[in-house]
Amino acid sequence: MTFDTVIRNGTVATASDTFTCDVGIEAGKIVALGRGLDDAREIIDATARLVLPGGIDSHVHISQPSGEGIVMADDFETGTRSAAFGGNTTVLPFCLQEKGRPLREALTNYHALAEGNCYTDVSFHLIISDPSEAVLGQELPALVADGYSSFKVFMTYEGLALSDREILEVMSVARETGALVMIHAENYDAIRFLTDRLERAGKTAPHFHAASRPIAVEREATHRAISLAELVDVPIMIVHVSNREAMEEIRRAQQKGLNIYGETCPQYLVLTARDLEGLNMEGAKYVCSPPPRDEASQAACWEGLRTGVFSTFSSDHCPFRYDDPAGKLAPKGRTSFRWVPNGIPGVAARLPILFSEGVVKGRISLNQFVALSATNHARTYGLYPRKGTIAIGADADIAIWDPERRVTITHALMQDGADYTPYEGIEVTGWPELTMVRGQTVVRDGALVGRKGFGTHLSRDLPNAGRRGP
Amino acid sequence: MTFDTVIRNGTVATASDTFTCDVGIEAGKIVALGRGLDDAREIIDATARLVLPGGIDSHVHISQPSGEGIVMADDFETGTRSAAFGGNTTVLPFCLQEKGRPLREALTNYHALAEGNCYTDVSFHLIISDPSEAVLGQELPALVADGYSSFKVFMTYEGLALSDREILEVMSVARETGALVMIHAENYDAIRFLTDRLERAGKTAPHFHAASRPIAVEREATHRAISLAELVDVPIMIVHVSNREAMEEIRRAQQKGLNIYGETCPQYLVLTARDLEGLNMEGAKYVCSPPPRDEASQAACWEGLRTGVFSTFSSDHCPFRYDDPAGKLAPKGRTSFRWVPNGIPGVAARLPILFSEGVVKGRISLNQFVALSATNHARTYGLYPRKGTIAIGADADIAIWDPERRVTITHALMQDGADYTPYEGIEVTGWPELTMVRGQTVVRDGALVGRKGFGTHLSRDLPNAGRRGP
Amino acid sequence: MTFDTVIRNGTVATASDTFTCDVGIEAGKIVALGRGLDDAREIIDATARLVLPGGIDSHVHISQPSGEGIVMADDFETGTRSAAFGGNTTVLPFCLQEKGRPLREALTNYHALAEGNCYTDVSFHLIISDPSEAVLGQELPALVADGYSSFKVFMTYEGLALSDREILEVMSVARETGALVMIHAENYDAIRFLTDRLERAGKTAPHFHAASRPIAVEREATHRAISLAELVDVPIMIVHVSNREAMEEIRRAQQKGLNIYGETCPQYLVLTARDLEGLNMEGAKYVCSPPPRDEASQAACWEGLRTGVFSTFSSDHCPFRYDDPAGKLAPKGRTSFRWVPNGIPGVAARLPILFSEGVVKGRISLNQFVALSATNHARTYGLYPRKGTIAIGADADIAIWDPERRVTITHALMQDGADYTPYEGIEVTGWPELTMVRGQTVVRDGALVGRKGFGTHLSRDLPNAGRRGP
Amino acid sequence: MTFDTVIRNGTVATASDTFTCDVGIEAGKIVALGRGLDDAREIIDATARLVLPGGIDSHVHISQPSGEGIVMADDFETGTRSAAFGGNTTVLPFCLQEKGRPLREALTNYHALAEGNCYTDVSFHLIISDPSEAVLGQELPALVADGYSSFKVFMTYEGLALSDREILEVMSVARETGALVMIHAENYDAIRFLTDRLERAGKTAPHFHAASRPIAVEREATHRAISLAELVDVPIMIVHVSNREAMEEIRRAQQKGLNIYGETCPQYLVLTARDLEGLNMEGAKYVCSPPPRDEASQAACWEGLRTGVFSTFSSDHCPFRYDDPAGKLAPKGRTSFRWVPNGIPGVAARLPILFSEGVVKGRISLNQFVALSATNHARTYGLYPRKGTIAIGADADIAIWDPERRVTITHALMQDGADYTPYEGIEVTGWPELTMVRGQTVVRDGALVGRKGFGTHLSRDLPNAGRRGP
Repeated sequence: MTFDTVIRNGTVATASDTFTCDVGIEAGKIVALGRGLDDAREIIDATARLVLPGGIDSHVHISQPSGEGIVMADDFETGTRSAAFGGNTTVLPFCLQEKGRPLREALTNYHALAEGNCYTDVSFHLIISDPSEAVLGQELPALVADGYSSFKVFMTYEGLALSDREILEVMSVARETGALVMIHAENYDAIRFLTDRLERAGKTAPHFHAASRPIAVEREATHRAISLAELVDVPIMIVHVSNREAMEEIRRAQQKGLNIYGETCPQYLVLTARDLEGLNMEGAKYVCSPPPRDEASQAACWEGLRTGVFSTFSSDHCPFRYDDPAGKLAPKGRTSFRWVPNGIPGVAARLPILFSEGVVKGRISLNQFVALSATNHARTYGLYPRKGTIAIGADADIAIWDPERRVTITHALMQDGADYTPYEGIEVTGWPELTMVRGQTVVRDGALVGRKGFGTHLSRDLPNAGRRGP
Repeated sequence: MTFDTVIRNGTVATASDTFTCDVGIEAGKIVALGRGLDDAREIIDATARLVLPGGIDSHVHISQPSGEGIVMADDFETGTRSAAFGGNTTVLPFCLQEKGRPLREALTNYHALAEGNCYTDVSFHLIISDPSEAVLGQELPALVADGYSSFKVFMTYEGLALSDREILEVMSVARETGALVMIHAENYDAIRFLTDRLERAGKTAPHFHAASRPIAVEREATHRAISLAELVDVPIMIVHVSNREAMEEIRRAQQKGLNIYGETCPQYLVLTARDLEGLNMEGAKYVCSPPPRDEASQAACWEGLRTGVFSTFSSDHCPFRYDDPAGKLAPKGRTSFRWVPNGIPGVAARLPILFSEGVVKGRISLNQFVALSATNHARTYGLYPRKGTIAIGADADIAIWDPERRVTITHALMQDGADYTPYEGIEVTGWPELTMVRGQTVVRDGALVGRKGFGTHLSRDLPNAGRRGP
Repeated sequence: MTFDTVIRNGTVATASDTFTCDVGIEAGKIVALGRGLDDAREIIDATARLVLPGGIDSHVHISQPSGEGIVMADDFETGTRSAAFGGNTTVLPFCLQEKGRPLREALTNYHALAEGNCYTDVSFHLIISDPSEAVLGQELPALVADGYSSFKVFMTYEGLALSDREILEVMSVARETGALVMIHAENYDAIRFLTDRLERAGKTAPHFHAASRPIAVEREATHRAISLAELVDVPIMIVHVSNREAMEEIRRAQQKGLNIYGETCPQYLVLTARDLEGLNMEGAKYVCSPPPRDEASQAACWEGLRTGVFSTFSSDHCPFRYDDPAGKLAPKGRTSFRWVPNGIPGVAARLPILFSEGVVKGRISLNQFVALSATNHARTYGLYPRKGTIAIGADADIAIWDPERRVTITHALMQDGADYTPYEGIEVTGWPELTMVRGQTVVRDGALVGRKGFGTHLSRDLPNAGRRGP
Repeated sequence: MTFDTVIRNGTVATASDTFTCDVGIEAGKIVALGRGLDDAREIIDATARLVLPGGIDSHVHISQPSGEGIVMADDFETGTRSAAFGGNTTVLPFCLQEKGRPLREALTNYHALAEGNCYTDVSFHLIISDPSEAVLGQELPALVADGYSSFKVFMTYEGLALSDREILEVMSVARETGALVMIHAENYDAIRFLTDRLERAGKTAPHFHAASRPIAVEREATHRAISLAELVDVPIMIVHVSNREAMEEIRRAQQKGLNIYGETCPQYLVLTARDLEGLNMEGAKYVCSPPPRDEASQAACWEGLRTGVFSTFSSDHCPFRYDDPAGKLAPKGRTSFRWVPNGIPGVAARLPILFSEGVVKGRISLNQFVALSATNHARTYGLYPRKGTIAIGADADIAIWDPERRVTITHALMQDGADYTPYEGIEVTGWPELTMVRGQTVVRDGALVGRKGFGTHLSRDLPNAGRRGP
């Protein structure tokens, strides 16, 4: 048999197994695992390298309207390029419904932005900002049938926060259709109350952002989201969990037998609230929500990853340029942390940080890395078994890693549209050398070799939400 | 020394001690404890009787406007009469602010209703339905200074439910003034969502009231109320807790060192949701919120009482006549449980039930009974040491109990303005034979001997909320 | 390439993945996964069948001396035959040290019993009954180096129970050598105390066995074993956990970050203490330790399996003939449950029960089944990646299952040396049709086709005990 | 009425109440509480003073044989003198059974030592070192009937440690007789194992005492003791709890409804393991078991006191002279911490430390102080209502405190037989000025005015062990 491509002699890892073999690829699919597969048009030598499923980042923001003259730093070209440099082969960005408008309209626009511009595959989550009867009763069921099988709702943010009643209605639709609801869990009223109080006290510098949304604000909303899901009897995903208290709420729910999923992100593993304390506006580079906490919270997030409370590890890539009035230094942002755009870039840094801090430092196994970075994302969001693993019949979405390469993270390496990385200067061991999407190499040895537009939008199956763990 | 009254040879119990002695009373105060106090104008023999602090019921509704043509079954005359028959000497009813109107106005009206009509002492909690800037900034601080040192807020009920933001503002005032906030914790959005769903399914009988507010609805709001109090760093009282999950939220908070207080009520000890399943509209007799749950919840409430998670035991007396279009059988109530007035009478049944089911059955000690029925109420709401105990200098508010008397509860014994009791037919051991307010006997051997209007309104000190336990 | 054997078109499952492909086998190893592998000396069609890693049962007793004239019902021939019929390819029996004698001596004898008699591969755990200085200081380190990398200690049983001090010493050796300690956790003193009391009360029927070792007896010893491991800082495996309380002790330890592993067994999923209540001595058929508990305990064991508290599912196969004076009906056993031999057969029933009750009924996923039945055993006891998965380079230890076949368990199907099965009459869906050890078919369609003696003893690596979960 | 003594105008506190009044005393009993009691042979002015129940210290060691040439520093004269200076009116020392000898014999000897020498009342607990059939079957039931209603058992210490079986047998007798079992909970095997290991490593200085009995050693034994009590269904008291983990075990048991009591001591509130690190042998001054831990453990012990997990606060007074070869500087003790006598003095420091660190600093209320220092001891050990409160009919055992007096603790103030105090230099606010036993003043203004031998031994009722909390 002649293969299109064979990856030779690498150490292949799945969410459960590690073994050395050749990988035979044909028509963009993995068709053979074995030894001595040498009849191929292209041979990629992976000796002393790890051959891993390409990363799936199920939480990224690209070209999302931000209001107030703020512009997100990445479009689909730069966002998926950065993702590919970070060892990812699929990203799941958010399509944001405009208030009073149909979701289809937002999708049309969003597809237009993505079409022809992607280096990796993409698939859109739907942000429900206006759960009208038409949206709940007609649009969402039809969209789930069309493969848009995940919704996101917000418990905070002006113009996005839904009431508990609205969240219950969205959850009901999810229950009926089989879609999965992702929840940003922070108590909006509490944040406004604390923000007003801080501003009245003249506490407006960026680092007061952290004080305006303390852990109890996140824990409360997490408990509430879980309670609403319990009432409707529907699985949900609590995204970007930052601390022990919220993690323990999820763990308690899981132990009660509820299908509650948790996600955490690199900012909660390697940053803390002290990073927001930079001189002048430097702290704005780290403003995201929930805010990074402290070392004990980092340890709790690792515990969540290690013990399976968190099944996905995402970047929450939400890039704004720092030195830019349409970004972090927006004029109003200088008057109060309240107006600093929330979000930081991270799609390219996610996997090296998890690999280095997790696998190399012995906190998680290599197989857990694969599960947390790829397999569980595919399972959770309806892309498995097409994506997220190395198995016969799966898409040849592969990242080849040098597990011993030492790299200092710089913004230049991130290849995104922002002008900084919050992870600047962090030293990591392990780096993705080659990223391949459906058999086509996109990035090799730090160079972009893929074709823009090869990445495509994926319709998704219903989430495998009833299943637990990897 | 010649006393006005001496109670001879009774077994006196306080929240910690039990001893046999005579009690000497002068000018409405307890002035002597000892033996052989025989020089008195009036001698009451209490041999083989318990001499207990008169009950304080810190959660009763009297003459409270209910809207929709519904009329509460008790005014101050009948409400305090019923209380006295049940061994109580002080009750704390709620003064309800009308939306858009000042609290002072409600207080003026409410005082007018009470003035000259009370058999026991009374003191008003303030229900905040409209926390405007004027209310928060001026009225409440002034009212606390005048001795109205407890607020109540609702997380549910049309026209009463406050937003989290409003609750935070009320808590802030409580923190600044030293007042205590009582919270009715149920998630209003969830109740409306479930109620709509039940009604759409044609499930409108009274017993669906319980299905419309399941345990998770109460637990969620309890967790949220605690979280808001944690953010403001202020003690709160979670009233009428009905089940283990809410109880455990309070316990967790207490163990973290937060000053969170809990209350439960007789309906959660001896009724269950099955009581709502009567034929026709009979179930309406048991409609209250939160609803009674099940036997496991009863056990959890006992555990809360026994271990101190709950420091007060109140009636939540909220009486409506059953066979009355202005009561439980309101015309709209017949169309759906949604419109059945919420609340049941219980001010006279509270103490016999706690004594019989608690002390006689060995679940709590006699001293715990005193703490839960009187002392802790006085401490929590700023009436101690004037009220709530038998000690030198305290008001001579005393109930003399026959601990062995067996009584079957009937509505006739309740002496209230309702036309039924939800506790009809329950057999109890132990009954209050004599109730004395400030040295004046009000009820003796089942007969009303007190003077209407002797009961007076009490200004209260700041709650002793920083203190834990009895 | 010409394979020795190809398994065609089956659904292959690993601990994380499920995919359809052919499996190419050469010299007893899996050498290729792919499609269209048709050049083979033997083709096994697996269409509509599951191709799973052969079961590994890490907890079986074979030919173990039992004292008192009691004879274990299985030798290596019947024991491994039964295992093969149950879809297993490797079993780990216990080599029991005789008091005062070297372990090597026991191993020599035990190897002699196994040699030439096995149908599946085997590997021996070492039961330490006499941790003398020589055993601790010299024998055990040498034996670990020779591939006997797991010890078992008992906290109960006459002649086996070690003191806490002795357990600490054994754990110290495990820490130094990298071996894993398995612990039978029941409090011996408590069992003797309760047994004496029951006997004094004339309560000697078999079902009093359960009363003699209630849940607290197991929970206490579990907590103690964990504490001792915590002091020495060494991983341990708590075997045959039967109930929630012991499970929660393990979960608490895991959440604290301790490397504590847990195992449960089929008797704790489908039997209860009521099964011991048979007429005459019928209850003796179910006498094992810990005893089966109740339905709530079964649910807790499922929860432990589902959430990863338990990483291995074993049979604790410990067979005695029922109708035999050298078995359950030993003369002394008729006088008191104290003398009924402890243990029940189950090596052949283990996997059908877990598959049917777990996978078919939706309690666990197919991948969790693979992990719990094979992969985690291999990892935990140092056989991975040679055993326990389907991957390139692994031994071709494979079970082919018909996932839809409905079977009623009978003793005849078990093919063991006992004369009954405690699982008689249980209906299961899913059955292993073919068992292959290192490429050689041992059982096919209910017929033994393997060669006795093909099974061999395996030296093991150090347990991968630092790793959590799959 | 003419009283023997009247204490005028003090602030009286009980476990639940605080009020100002005069206390009338007649024939050693409290016979009147009131105002204006001025007809008395002796008037003690207590204006601006607290009038509290005299302290009961239910855990002191006096004249207890220690073996190895070690002599306890206090006999009944100095021990009860020190107790009286510390505001105590009753102490409960331990009568130690000699192995192989009847308890009666030990009691005879111990009574002889106490007779005529005590300044406070005393009552003996029975240490069971040899639970023979005769002891269990005959002696203990008879002794309980004679008023020796509490046993103590040890899980550690050479010559004292009982096996689990023996503890179960003692508990059974307690269950049958109504006695209360006190338990010293540390795992002896683990301590020996760790001690041997430390000594082999040359780690013999006093501060390694702490390393030889880490928290897990105490937590394990605590869990085990609770489990054994659960099996027998009998209340127990876990004495001298030092840390969060053991405290949480007790809390968990209490929440399950078990009657498990807990005690902590001043060394766990104000000392830490660092105090054992003195130069030369200075650390020996702080060697006691369990050892003091760290600040987090201190906080946990306060939490236990505040929330009722611990119902008694005792000194565990166990005095040895420091600069004395029959004390801490015993010759063998200089070779290893193993031989340093375990125990520190504290009977005089207990109450000032609890008052100052607890009441003055706001951690507990004055009423909790009364409960923890006196009332709960009386209730728990069968002395209530004769002792432990200020109520009509109780013994006039009273301590008059100046709540504002500031004192620096020195050994001279302790008035005991040791030559140091581990609390030297600690500054406290609040001090007992007068101690009165049964109406007779023993200590006044720092001077001993009582008569040696006035203190007497108390027969005790059965412990009120079924009761929870005050």
